[in-house]
Amino acid sequence: MNNLFRDFPTAAVRAEEETFEDLLARPDVRIERIVSTGQASPPGFWYSQPQGEWVVVLQGAAGLLIEGEPVRELRPGDFINIPAYCRHRVEWTEANGPTVWLAVHYELAQDAPTA
Amino acid sequence: MNNLFRDFPTAAVRAEEETFEDLLARPDVRIERIVSTGQASPPGFWYSQPQGEWVVVLQGAAGLLIEGEPVRELRPGDFINIPAYCRHRVEWTEANGPTVWLAVHYELAQDAPTA
Repeated sequence: MNNLFRDFPTAAVRAEEETFEDLLARPDVRIERIVSTGQASPPGFWYSQPQGEWVVVLQGAAGLLIEGEPVRELRPGDFINIPAYCRHRVEWTEANGPTVWLAVHYELAQDAPTA
Repeated sequence: MNNLFRDFPTAAVRAEEETFEDLLARPDVRIERIVSTGQASPPGFWYSQPQGEWVVVLQGAAGLLIEGEPVRELRPGDFINIPAYCRHRVEWTEANGPTVWLAVHYELAQDAPTA
């Protein structure tokens, strides 16, 4: 796979589940393609990660909720930086056709065991 | 600016020069939007960077040359990882309308002065 908009995993093509694929995985950064097909975070579930995450929607649409803020509707090209430990969840993704996200995870070293 | 396809710098709108904007700058990663309007690398010029660079074309088109390989035509969604010190250059970018690149620079710490 060398194009973000092609070669979706079977589970994404069948709209069975959200798919996550690493495009680059290095000690300091991880770049991931996420394909959503109508999924949302489970009720009451919040992401809260020890890493920072910079994320952009490139196709489709999604509703992203940062705790304490209104839901943001993300359309193609819309990006946001989610700092480490910032609680957030996906309220909705477009039901008709895939939503393609590109996520850059950084500050990974905070996860590494200390020497 | 919170959308990759809007709010281009004036120099890009006027097609005067290639523009470079940091979207995120951290010790371990730098995310950059590049907008090209027909520019190419100067004749004989090669990029060769101490950092790794993962890059995707999101709008427009470009011809990327990795030394010793054929020119790769990059269209929206096409991505490539350029390892540190891999010599490369931009042979051409689309003359009609902007070409939007997203570049993720990593392994920045290799640049840091040693203690």
